Amino acid sequence: MSRYWNERTASLVPYVPGEQPKDQTYIKLNTNENPYPPSPAVLEAIRSATGDQLRLYPDPTCEDLTRAIAIRYGVSEKEVFVGNGSDEILAFAFAGFFTPGSPILFPDITYSFYPVYAQLYGLDYETIALDESFGVPIEDFRRPNGGIVLPNPNAPTAQAIPLAQIRKLLDSSPDRVVVIDEAYIDFGGESAIGLVGQYPNLLVVQTLSKSRSLAGLRVGFAIGSEELIEGLNRIKNSFNSYTIDRLALAGAIAAIEDNDYFETTRQAVIATRERTVRQLVRLGFNVTDSKANFVFVAHPEKNAADLFAQLKRDGILVRYFNKPRIDNYLRVSIGTDEEMDAFLAAIEKIVA
Amino acid sequence: MSRYWNERTASLVPYVPGEQPKDQTYIKLNTNENPYPPSPAVLEAIRSATGDQLRLYPDPTCEDLTRAIAIRYGVSEKEVFVGNGSDEILAFAFAGFFTPGSPILFPDITYSFYPVYAQLYGLDYETIALDESFGVPIEDFRRPNGGIVLPNPNAPTAQAIPLAQIRKLLDSSPDRVVVIDEAYIDFGGESAIGLVGQYPNLLVVQTLSKSRSLAGLRVGFAIGSEELIEGLNRIKNSFNSYTIDRLALAGAIAAIEDNDYFETTRQAVIATRERTVRQLVRLGFNVTDSKANFVFVAHPEKNAADLFAQLKRDGILVRYFNKPRIDNYLRVSIGTDEEMDAFLAAIEKIVA
Repeated sequence: MSRYWNERTASLVPYVPGEQPKDQTYIKLNTNENPYPPSPAVLEAIRSATGDQLRLYPDPTCEDLTRAIAIRYGVSEKEVFVGNGSDEILAFAFAGFFTPGSPILFPDITYSFYPVYAQLYGLDYETIALDESFGVPIEDFRRPNGGIVLPNPNAPTAQAIPLAQIRKLLDSSPDRVVVIDEAYIDFGGESAIGLVGQYPNLLVVQTLSKSRSLAGLRVGFAIGSEELIEGLNRIKNSFNSYTIDRLALAGAIAAIEDNDYFETTRQAVIATRERTVRQLVRLGFNVTDSKANFVFVAHPEKNAADLFAQLKRDGILVRYFNKPRIDNYLRVSIGTDEEMDAFLAAIEKIVA
Repeated sequence: MSRYWNERTASLVPYVPGEQPKDQTYIKLNTNENPYPPSPAVLEAIRSATGDQLRLYPDPTCEDLTRAIAIRYGVSEKEVFVGNGSDEILAFAFAGFFTPGSPILFPDITYSFYPVYAQLYGLDYETIALDESFGVPIEDFRRPNGGIVLPNPNAPTAQAIPLAQIRKLLDSSPDRVVVIDEAYIDFGGESAIGLVGQYPNLLVVQTLSKSRSLAGLRVGFAIGSEELIEGLNRIKNSFNSYTIDRLALAGAIAAIEDNDYFETTRQAVIATRERTVRQLVRLGFNVTDSKANFVFVAHPEKNAADLFAQLKRDGILVRYFNKPRIDNYLRVSIGTDEEMDAFLAAIEKIVA
């Protein structure tokens, strides 16, 4: 506590990201990174941008990247916003669209950054309890609210929400902004981007960190109605004119344009996930129906905290959340086939 | 206007950065970029970081960069914060240290982003009028306030504030955070970093955009007491865990460590500035005493808006602010000797 902090600063309980060990000796299945490297075209584009031009400010409007995303997703450039990771975009959405006194709704089990954003901007929120099997009870979102945030697929449960359900949610809250956080959508879910033209209150947020293997580059994007995108730009341009550097812009454009590489790597992750799920089921684990690049698993006879600790001793990092309802689950990112074989061998030894 | 925007979003008047023309045919003296490229060591470090590791999140604590800055400036690592450009750090400081109802003080003529941050966080502010010769009347800051923000050197006036004056300011506001924005300090001012140990309320903010020729990379840093740095970290970790990408981290470390290149290029900019000032005085301009990488000039007989337009037609971009008290001034960034010769030749033709 410091007398120089304001009330907000003193009351914040910041988000804690997964460990980023520096020694790199772990098999790292704890922060949902992609096991495959970025596209060679991305690395080439960054190398080309690494030159004297770095002395100049980047394009504050990110025009070229915005255009590449618009073309790729079949929307207009005015329906696209880019940010310094999708986390920054989510923060801007909380700052720009929500109002104190009118509660934001999100699931009780979800990305744990949402309540932190609400705190940061002094917003109220209510959580909607997932059902017993971690399904999202869309009808429970029909209550007075100041906005809705829903990840699809949800994290850490990994389960996808059918588009018909998302549509129901949008229909029931036409006066409030509905943010669909699609960080993991490319691993099997149905994107809501196609609904943007019909719902001016829909903001779809995606990231290049997962399916484009670029967690280290910090680029996310949002697609929504022109008025929502203009709202995000008003916040961003009152916060930092230049949020994305020249190298990230160059790399992100190449990543969006290299669709073949994107398809190949995301299909590889999906195939490894399906194989991993089969093995885990064979070992007696309960495994949710994952449409993400991670699985969410519990063993009926083994304590998850113990499994986490034992795996760490074996050199394998996964994610454990010491939180109500999920404190006997582990979230395990999908690595390469070799990494998952090592994980499966280690966990088989523990649970056998 | 959109019904989905909250009051904040609707009322914002965002900051407008200087033009970043894409055709690159202008001599660009409008956004205070460094005319020299980044250090070769920076480009090499970025190239080395351009690889498969980009699939992994960067270090959210920016430990290596923080250490490099701490060593370079002789402070502890806990006294250093790094951000996505100094603009982001300023935004975090406004968010974390200031409180609605207690006015923030800054000069009437200064970086025009300050009132925008105040708007964004719903803060009140009062401006302190610079004196006739654009000097900062430090005694006028002795009034009830919720915090003080002062750039040294000031922009766009280019004038430096002596350290004794900064010390007086800190002594007169021991209960409030005083932010000294040293974006341009390396071109001739005296940094307040040496005062950090004595004043727990002092936050010094610097950037790699100007004196390290890295406007395109987006890295700034702040040095202050541990409690202020912890406050900034609380805000940052409630906003975006990973604000700085792997390439920016690698490049920034190399920039901080290559002190020889830094010294050579900043001295070159200073020498060109002094020569430019002499020529402008010879042409009849009033020129403030610049300790920055730009000059602030007015001609007693020529209208600044006309000069701006004429220079643009001649392929030279400078900055013109259509604002009270300075609407007959131009801000001209210091380019290479060749660029300044072209500028001087063009302006001599206009005013002759």
